[in-house]
Amino acid sequence: MDRVAWTADGLVPAVAQDARSGEVLMLAWMNREALAQTVETGEAVYWSRSRKALWKKGETSGHVQRVLEVRLDCDADAVLLRVESVAGIACHTGRRRCFFSKLEGEGASRRWAETDPVLADPGTFRDG
Amino acid sequence: MDRVAWTADGLVPAVAQDARSGEVLMLAWMNREALAQTVETGEAVYWSRSRKALWKKGETSGHVQRVLEVRLDCDADAVLLRVESVAGIACHTGRRRCFFSKLEGEGASRRWAETDPVLADPGTFRDG
Repeated sequence: MDRVAWTADGLVPAVAQDARSGEVLMLAWMNREALAQTVETGEAVYWSRSRKALWKKGETSGHVQRVLEVRLDCDADAVLLRVESVAGIACHTGRRRCFFSKLEGEGASRRWAETDPVLADPGTFRDG
Repeated sequence: MDRVAWTADGLVPAVAQDARSGEVLMLAWMNREALAQTVETGEAVYWSRSRKALWKKGETSGHVQRVLEVRLDCDADAVLLRVESVAGIACHTGRRRCFFSKLEGEGASRRWAETDPVLADPGTFRDG
């Protein structure tokens, strides 16, 4: 924990990658307690900047992320988790990953195109 | 560009993923100009927070990242690049990725273990 270069707000960005598919699922933030709980429990816990609270991934949705590996980058200011995404859904919109918007087109017609289907009704949970 | 939810400092975190291996290579930051240049040129340009300057990846090292895909997450506050890492090196330490430290061990004996070899002498470049 002491190696981590926390921001002035005491946070570090954490990237979750699906251990099986290799897909990058999401980027969220952790404070020291979130990282400690993630390591202790083996399930991803983030810090919700909007709610200013610890956020156990899957708490309301069941879409828990089992953490197989925790990595730190060369500057110690970013974390990478290799996870098993329990229901195959990481996004609060009900998609398998948060990065479902892809830049397409050229010049003035560039746009963010949605590429991934909604797999679960987001009305039934709030945290992906 | 207008969809991106920039921080108060005008930045967004950008994750670079190797298009072939699926490995997450690095996390860096972009401002609007860095993202625009990345999209226009098809090669990754970041914002160096330490140097407070645009940072064309590979400028001094030749380790350019060809950008095959640009994605945005559900909150529009994180970018994902799928890249070809020209010399197979993304890290300024001469390793293929910045996430070369892996958390190993249990309890008090937990430590960050370096898992990746140095492939190029970092004395010959400054930007990976």
